[in-house]
Amino acid sequence: MSLPYTLILLRHGNSEWNQKNLFTGWVDVRLSDLGVTEANRAGELLNESGLTPDIQYTSLLTRAIQTANIALDVADRAWIPVKRSWRLNERHYGDLQGKDKAQTLAEYGAEQFQIWRRSFDVPPPPIADDNEYSQVHDPRYVGIDGEIPKTECLKDVVDRMLPYWHSDITVDLAAGKTVLVTAHGNSLRALVKHLDGISDDEIASLNIPTGIPLVYKLDENFVPIEPAEYLDPEAAAAGAAAVASQGKG
Amino acid sequence: MSLPYTLILLRHGNSEWNQKNLFTGWVDVRLSDLGVTEANRAGELLNESGLTPDIQYTSLLTRAIQTANIALDVADRAWIPVKRSWRLNERHYGDLQGKDKAQTLAEYGAEQFQIWRRSFDVPPPPIADDNEYSQVHDPRYVGIDGEIPKTECLKDVVDRMLPYWHSDITVDLAAGKTVLVTAHGNSLRALVKHLDGISDDEIASLNIPTGIPLVYKLDENFVPIEPAEYLDPEAAAAGAAAVASQGKG
Repeated sequence: MSLPYTLILLRHGNSEWNQKNLFTGWVDVRLSDLGVTEANRAGELLNESGLTPDIQYTSLLTRAIQTANIALDVADRAWIPVKRSWRLNERHYGDLQGKDKAQTLAEYGAEQFQIWRRSFDVPPPPIADDNEYSQVHDPRYVGIDGEIPKTECLKDVVDRMLPYWHSDITVDLAAGKTVLVTAHGNSLRALVKHLDGISDDEIASLNIPTGIPLVYKLDENFVPIEPAEYLDPEAAAAGAAAVASQGKG
Repeated sequence: MSLPYTLILLRHGNSEWNQKNLFTGWVDVRLSDLGVTEANRAGELLNESGLTPDIQYTSLLTRAIQTANIALDVADRAWIPVKRSWRLNERHYGDLQGKDKAQTLAEYGAEQFQIWRRSFDVPPPPIADDNEYSQVHDPRYVGIDGEIPKTECLKDVVDRMLPYWHSDITVDLAAGKTVLVTAHGNSLRALVKHLDGISDDEIASLNIPTGIPLVYKLDENFVPIEPAEYLDPEAAAAGAAAVASQGKG
């Protein structure tokens, strides 16, 4: 196994709540039929690329796990080791979790809506413990090495994701393993921000499309030796544009 | 978490090669549609039982991994940690891998056929390295802590499975975790032989049905405090009879 190291990022596909236009965050919704199709396509893209992940990382959320399971099954790599962590979870959307996006936009106005959606360091209001969409009683977070969030901005995601990048993912990369990380729009934006050195302001306009593996080649310091590439660049460009347009919905 | 410890064993469902009546062993075939249905049913049985696996173990074979992924997804436990090991693999069927069962029976006769199928300590002839159904070049076994088998009898399976039981699975049980082991007819027979103290002769007549979780309650020495129970006893009895009848096919 030699340099450069290979890191593959994969954002889960369309979920049931994407289709309902609800803020999701840590609410554990499932892939929609479209999301399943996207996961299959991701597996086919891995196959066509000749890339062979040696280990997979996922969040603790079912939609990312489903995506990884399907894609790796299609790629004939279902058997590779698995590590999961809450540190790869989607951004916690606070009190907005479970709320309709269009209603929220109408109620609070476009400026506030966009701040909650894309500001680097302003989180939405925290969710109450007795809110049905709080995770404070979810068994999967019992004993996690940190407090269960009640809301997060992207900065918070960077702060809880990066320690895991350093403690676990880079260790597997340094061992020469091709690593697949299947996660979420914001946990992957946090990682891309770190890898590509994107500023707090510029990260607002970066959108990661769903279901299309993004491949990094990294040097011994885990710095990209060239710009990362999507396995299907045309579909990725269209997908990123679609994600960006959600903010205007 | 308190005693007794809870151990759940699950044999994968019908595979594509079950349907073709071929010896499978370590050949990495997929679940058939029937096998997918069985895995879904296993998840429903887990749900109905109220059992909540905290950690899952699988072999390195896709049909077991598919079964676990589907069952845990149905049971809303896709997020639990995963450990995989070749030590939970199906018995290696040696030179019989890929051969038609009925043809083998006709060619070698019922006595030899039954010896290969059910004797405790007589393995089939070893598979050649250049046989298309050998695993000697399979990337998933690179670097395993042992030699890649070229044939195995049930005694060999016991000998390579039990170290993993002691080193890993019992450690999770002792930590109070409910453990789900999704594996194969013979790796599970090897474990049941150990747990229930079944003799080398008597194990020949023990058959484990597919897709029905088998629940053990174990004391602090990992000894069953009562007979293990299938979550659907009637279906299990019918399933075991069906497995037994394969030997007469």
